[in-house]
Amino acid sequence: MVTASITTIGDEILIGQIVDTNSSMISRELGAIGVKVSDMVSIPDERSQIISRLSEELSRNQIVISTGGLGPTKDDITKDALAELSGSSTYVRHKGQEKMVYDILHSRGLDVLEINLRQADVPDSCEVIINRRGTAPIMIFRFPAERFGHPAVLYAMPGVSYETEAALPEVINDIKAHFPVNDIFHRTVMVYGLAESALAKLIEPWEDALPKDIHLAYLPSTLTGVRLRLSIYEGERKFEESRIDEQIESLKAYLGDKIYSLQDDTLEAVVGRLLRESGSSLAAAESCTGGEIAHMITTVPGASDYFLGSITSYSIGVKEKLLGVPASLIAKKGIVSSEVAAAMAEGVRRLIRSTYSVATTGWADAYGDEHEPAGTVWVGVSGPGGTITEKYNFKDDRKRNIERFSASALDLLRRYIIKQLKR
Amino acid sequence: MVTASITTIGDEILIGQIVDTNSSMISRELGAIGVKVSDMVSIPDERSQIISRLSEELSRNQIVISTGGLGPTKDDITKDALAELSGSSTYVRHKGQEKMVYDILHSRGLDVLEINLRQADVPDSCEVIINRRGTAPIMIFRFPAERFGHPAVLYAMPGVSYETEAALPEVINDIKAHFPVNDIFHRTVMVYGLAESALAKLIEPWEDALPKDIHLAYLPSTLTGVRLRLSIYEGERKFEESRIDEQIESLKAYLGDKIYSLQDDTLEAVVGRLLRESGSSLAAAESCTGGEIAHMITTVPGASDYFLGSITSYSIGVKEKLLGVPASLIAKKGIVSSEVAAAMAEGVRRLIRSTYSVATTGWADAYGDEHEPAGTVWVGVSGPGGTITEKYNFKDDRKRNIERFSASALDLLRRYIIKQLKR
Repeated sequence: MVTASITTIGDEILIGQIVDTNSSMISRELGAIGVKVSDMVSIPDERSQIISRLSEELSRNQIVISTGGLGPTKDDITKDALAELSGSSTYVRHKGQEKMVYDILHSRGLDVLEINLRQADVPDSCEVIINRRGTAPIMIFRFPAERFGHPAVLYAMPGVSYETEAALPEVINDIKAHFPVNDIFHRTVMVYGLAESALAKLIEPWEDALPKDIHLAYLPSTLTGVRLRLSIYEGERKFEESRIDEQIESLKAYLGDKIYSLQDDTLEAVVGRLLRESGSSLAAAESCTGGEIAHMITTVPGASDYFLGSITSYSIGVKEKLLGVPASLIAKKGIVSSEVAAAMAEGVRRLIRSTYSVATTGWADAYGDEHEPAGTVWVGVSGPGGTITEKYNFKDDRKRNIERFSASALDLLRRYIIKQLKR
Repeated sequence: MVTASITTIGDEILIGQIVDTNSSMISRELGAIGVKVSDMVSIPDERSQIISRLSEELSRNQIVISTGGLGPTKDDITKDALAELSGSSTYVRHKGQEKMVYDILHSRGLDVLEINLRQADVPDSCEVIINRRGTAPIMIFRFPAERFGHPAVLYAMPGVSYETEAALPEVINDIKAHFPVNDIFHRTVMVYGLAESALAKLIEPWEDALPKDIHLAYLPSTLTGVRLRLSIYEGERKFEESRIDEQIESLKAYLGDKIYSLQDDTLEAVVGRLLRESGSSLAAAESCTGGEIAHMITTVPGASDYFLGSITSYSIGVKEKLLGVPASLIAKKGIVSSEVAAAMAEGVRRLIRSTYSVATTGWADAYGDEHEPAGTVWVGVSGPGGTITEKYNFKDDRKRNIERFSASALDLLRRYIIKQLKR
C-alpha cells in the first residue's frame, strides 16, 4: 500500500497561534485515492530540522507532502532547505509562475518587487505546479530508489489554505500518474436537524445491515449538519456506486426530508437552487444572527438572482421602525418569542416585497431573559403559505450558537419552500 | 532550553475526520512558561508505532505530551504500549479515578460497567492526575537520565478537548515543579492595509536593524491583515519585554495608523472598542459584502451596545426605497461607484440614526461593469465629520473578495473614527 506523510512547516503552528487545517484537507483527498496517511508532523522554520525530518519521512513513506514555509519574507527558509535536500544549488526562475506573480499583484493594484519575483525561483532539481492563487509555486522533488530505499516524491506546497486547496487536485493527479493507487468510491448524504448521536441511534438498524465492505463515516459540522460518507475501497466503479446508491435509497426511509442533499453541499446552496428554479425571491430579518444568514446566502455565486436584501435589526428601534414590529408586542411577549419572530419575518417580506422571508430573534450568549434562556432562537419563515415559527436551543459559545441558529433558520426555510412547491 | 513534543494518537486525525485542536491549545500553555515546542506529531492507533514514535520524541525532548488513544474501546492499545514503554507489566486501579468513573456515569444516569472501571486501571510505573471530566486518567511516566540520555517525562492525556483543557493546568504545574522553565516573551503587532511583501519591503531597514535575539514572524490573513510577532526566547521578563517594546516604538514610525492593535486582535473588536469608549453607535449598508460586515461586528460579545443594525441591499429596489439612493444617480454613476457608496452610507445613517455608518458596493466575483472591473469595491463611511469613500481592488475568489472587502471597510471606518475622536 502506498503511504504518505504530511509535514507542516512553520513556527506559528508550533507556538499554537494557528491550527493546522491543511493536513486534514490533504489527508481526506489522499484517502479518496487509497493512499494511507501514516503520520502528520509539524516542525519549525529551521533549516536543519526541515532537512532531517523530511529525510526521515521520505525514508518511511513513498510520498511526503509539505505545506508552509514558502512566504516571501525572511522567516521562510524552506526553499533553501529543499534545494540542499535535493542536492541542487542552482535556482531557475519559472516563467509560468513569474507571469502569475505579475498577474496577481497587478490585479491587486500592487507593484511587483524583486522580493515577489524571487517567489518564482525554484531549485533546478524540481518540477513545478503553478500556484494560481498565490506567488509561491508547488515544487515536486522526485528521488530515485537508491536515495531513500524506494522511489519517493516530495510535494512542497504553500501553507495558505486557500492556495493549498486550489493546487491539491493537480498534486493528487500527479500522485495518480506516478503511483499504483486505486479509486475509492464515495457517496455523501447531507443531513440536517439531528445531532450525531441521535442520528446514529435513529439509523442503527440500517447501519447494522450495511454490507461489511461499505464503510460509513459521520462528519458533523455546525453549519452543514452531519455529512454521512459511504465508501467502498475497491471494485468496479459503476457496480460499486450502484451498490452504495441502493443503500442510500433505503436510508431515505429513515430520514425523509432531514436529508437535504446527496452531494457535498450547503444549506444555502440548496435554498438558492430551490429559489432559482421556482423563480422566487428571498429577504431576511436578522437579530441575534447579526448578518450571518445574509452572508451565507450571498456567498453562493449568483445569489443576486433571488436574494433581494435583509435588515439586521440589532436595536429595538430598528425592529419597530423598519420592520414594523409593535413595541407592545415586544413588551408583552418578550423580544425572543414566536410572535416577534413571526412579525419580523412578515415585516421584512412586506418591506422588501419578496416571495419568502426568514427571521431570527434569540440570545446568542450569556444573556437570556425571563422568557427564554441563553442559546435559544426563535426562527420565523413567511411566504405565500403563511407564517410559521420554530424554536431551537443550543449550548455552545457565541460564535457557534450564531452558526447553529443561522443553519437552523436556513433549514426551516428549505423545508417550508419544499412544501410550498409541492402544493 | 526545555523542549517538548506534542504527540496525537488516533486514526481519526490521520484520515482527516477530525482537526487536531488540542496541540495548539497545549503549545500555547507551554509557550507561556517558556517551554519550546519542537514538533507536533500525529500517529495511528498502532501499538508498535506508539512505542517507537514516543521513544524517538523522548530522545529528542525532555517533555512529551500525548493526547488521545485512551477511550474505553481503544485504551488497550495505547495503555499497553505505554506500559511496555515504561517497563511495567502490572496494572493497578487508581482509587481516585475509580470514584470519578462512578460519579460521572451516575450523574449521566448510566450504569457502571467493568469496561468503564478498567479506565481507572493504570500501569504501576506511572503517577496519576485525575480526569475530572472523563473516565481516563492523565498518566505521568518519569524516565531516568540513563533511559533517553536526559531526564524525560511523558504526560499521556485523553483526546477529548473538553477533558484535555480541564487537566492541562495540573500538567503545566507538574512541569513547572520538575523543570527549570523560563518565560518566552511575545508581542504582537496587528497591521492592516499592506500585503505581506509590501510590508516587508517597507519595514526592511527596521527589520535589518533588529537585535539578533528578537525573532520576527509575519502571519497574514484576509480578515485581520498581517500579524507581526516579535519573540525573545530567554532573559528576564521585564527587561526583555521593554526591549521588544522599544522596537515596536520605532516600528510605529514606519507604519503609523496602519498598526491597528498591539495585541492579538481583530478589526471588528478594535472598532467596537472605539465606539464603546466614545459612546457612539454604528449602522451598515452592505451590497456586495452581503451581511459579512454586520456578521463580523456582531461576533464581538456586547456588540448590541453600539451596533444598531444594517441593511443588506442586494437589489437595486432596496437601495432606492430603503436607503434613498436616487435611481438617477445609479444610472449616471454606475451601481459600483464612489457616489453610490456615499449615498448608501448617508442613507443608512439617516434611516437608523447612528453616529457612524459604513457602506459597500462592489463586484465580488466574475461580474463587473463598464465602470469597474470584478474584484472592485467602493467603501463609504459617514459620520459627524462628513462622508468619505475609498476604492479597493482584489482578485481573489468570491468568498475571499467578500472577506477582503469587509475588512477593508472596517479599516476605513476605524481610521475615520480615530480622526474624529482626535478633533
